[in-house]
Amino acid sequence: MAHANSVADASSSAPAAARPLLVTGTIGIDTVETPSARADRVLGGSAAYFAAAASRLTPVRLVGVVGDDLPASHRSTLEGLGGVDLRGLETRAGGKTFAWGGKYLLNLNERETLFTELGVVAEAPPRVPEVFADSEFVFLGNTHPAVQAGLLEQVPSRAVAVADTMDLWINVAHDELVHLLSKVDGIVLNDSEAAQLTGVRNAITAGRRILGYGPTFAVVKKGEHGAVLVHRDGVAVVPAFPAEEDMVVDPTGAGDTFAGGFMAHLARTGRSDLDTLQEALAWGTVMASFTIGAFSLDGVARATPADLAERYRRFARHARV
Amino acid sequence: MAHANSVADASSSAPAAARPLLVTGTIGIDTVETPSARADRVLGGSAAYFAAAASRLTPVRLVGVVGDDLPASHRSTLEGLGGVDLRGLETRAGGKTFAWGGKYLLNLNERETLFTELGVVAEAPPRVPEVFADSEFVFLGNTHPAVQAGLLEQVPSRAVAVADTMDLWINVAHDELVHLLSKVDGIVLNDSEAAQLTGVRNAITAGRRILGYGPTFAVVKKGEHGAVLVHRDGVAVVPAFPAEEDMVVDPTGAGDTFAGGFMAHLARTGRSDLDTLQEALAWGTVMASFTIGAFSLDGVARATPADLAERYRRFARHARV
Repeated sequence: MAHANSVADASSSAPAAARPLLVTGTIGIDTVETPSARADRVLGGSAAYFAAAASRLTPVRLVGVVGDDLPASHRSTLEGLGGVDLRGLETRAGGKTFAWGGKYLLNLNERETLFTELGVVAEAPPRVPEVFADSEFVFLGNTHPAVQAGLLEQVPSRAVAVADTMDLWINVAHDELVHLLSKVDGIVLNDSEAAQLTGVRNAITAGRRILGYGPTFAVVKKGEHGAVLVHRDGVAVVPAFPAEEDMVVDPTGAGDTFAGGFMAHLARTGRSDLDTLQEALAWGTVMASFTIGAFSLDGVARATPADLAERYRRFARHARV
Repeated sequence: MAHANSVADASSSAPAAARPLLVTGTIGIDTVETPSARADRVLGGSAAYFAAAASRLTPVRLVGVVGDDLPASHRSTLEGLGGVDLRGLETRAGGKTFAWGGKYLLNLNERETLFTELGVVAEAPPRVPEVFADSEFVFLGNTHPAVQAGLLEQVPSRAVAVADTMDLWINVAHDELVHLLSKVDGIVLNDSEAAQLTGVRNAITAGRRILGYGPTFAVVKKGEHGAVLVHRDGVAVVPAFPAEEDMVVDPTGAGDTFAGGFMAHLARTGRSDLDTLQEALAWGTVMASFTIGAFSLDGVARATPADLAERYRRFARHARV
């Protein structure tokens, strides 16, 4: 595990300090039903959401695999994000792109999965291309922890590596996940997953237990209730953006864009100290607040720099202590 | 409904601006079980918790009624708080003091009520003594909304009146509660209660609907997830203090001491504008963080000014955006 060196004098608006940011994860085709609307076979997947958000702040390198059934319009959307290097996006001939269908219940905070078609995600994982091997900030989107560990090894220059995970891997690949935790600097997971991994319901105490496996920090996400950061040097808490009911169209991807904003702020500042991580929580929150306002990547992808700055100021005003 | 005039140049540490703060509510005898400990017949009740917290910041006038069975040691505890004027505490001869028993489940976030003995609380309500009639900041602890309205009329000098309520009154006294809402400046209630009152689960939107009944602001409490303030002039969100598992001994009274810290900050500054209300949310959070650390009023009552200032600084650091 390598730690980032803080870059002296780097402020959050100093692009000179920016370090290359790599994300691995899923590019998928989502079908989403909400109580009031429906989106059919739109672009989704953890890495797509992450890249859409992170690329608002800093250049992103994407590593993933799709089938040759990925609609051309979805590829165009990824290309149109700007600032996302797609040389790590493998298109597998004859393969099927990951597809997911979900339905949100009335309050938009609970959902059921209608179908999951793994497609190429069940086959051999993608490779990190040689031109990405010098990436310094790495986000390992949710997949089998052994695959995440294999991808991580392909980025020897990494300074700050952060992994996402999910309940499935805590259940069926516990040992591999624990091994991965010894290799990364940070982990991002939901409060229910943190409780499942540690047996502790309190999010702060659960996060602290996770540090015992090796990482320097854990981000425990609480959905509409915000997130907590447990770090060796201290603790930070952030509420969710106070979104009114009519602001929420589709929560899909909120967690992935939270991670994208979070990691992008680290990469663009070249830092990973506690103060910078705390700022990064707020940037993650801002990105998630755009994502929930539309289906697919639309909400975050169309946010302009002025929109982001204004939303950040609003959030800071709403949440100041 | 009368509104507070902001006092020019009053900062949060300017006692010269302090206005008299009155609280009405329950003084009770609590028996509490947690998974690891138990407290028998300790001092409790909403007004006792509120006064213990508020008196850390500003003088408090307490209005309530007890039976002559209230243990002398509990009366001594109230007297020993310092800064709580007990001339509105009626001791009813032959009456029985309100008593409550509750048991917390393993995660300390769910509890069941084991017994409630209303005693004197089921009889005629207390009166606001003549010497308290010039109170400017008024908190109406949870009781039947018609009783709250009757108490409010006895404080003609009120500038800022805030009421607490509960699910029971939303069910059995809906019209009286709506009437009360047209008479107060603010309401404090739990997220589940806000949803019940408005039919809207989103805390911000529910709070906004409540403003339609008349108040200038609504504070929607979310327990371990903090609180939101919905005000005619804007919205504020505050996370809970990031309490580790071993910091939580007994959550009883957390909401009442939150209200006490909140109202005390308003009264001591003589203000109720959005900025001051937002600061008050943080003071409420700090008070609640002391309350949960011990049974009964002990946690908040023994907090020194230095303890409070240090905890406030810690919270501001943990929660800064």
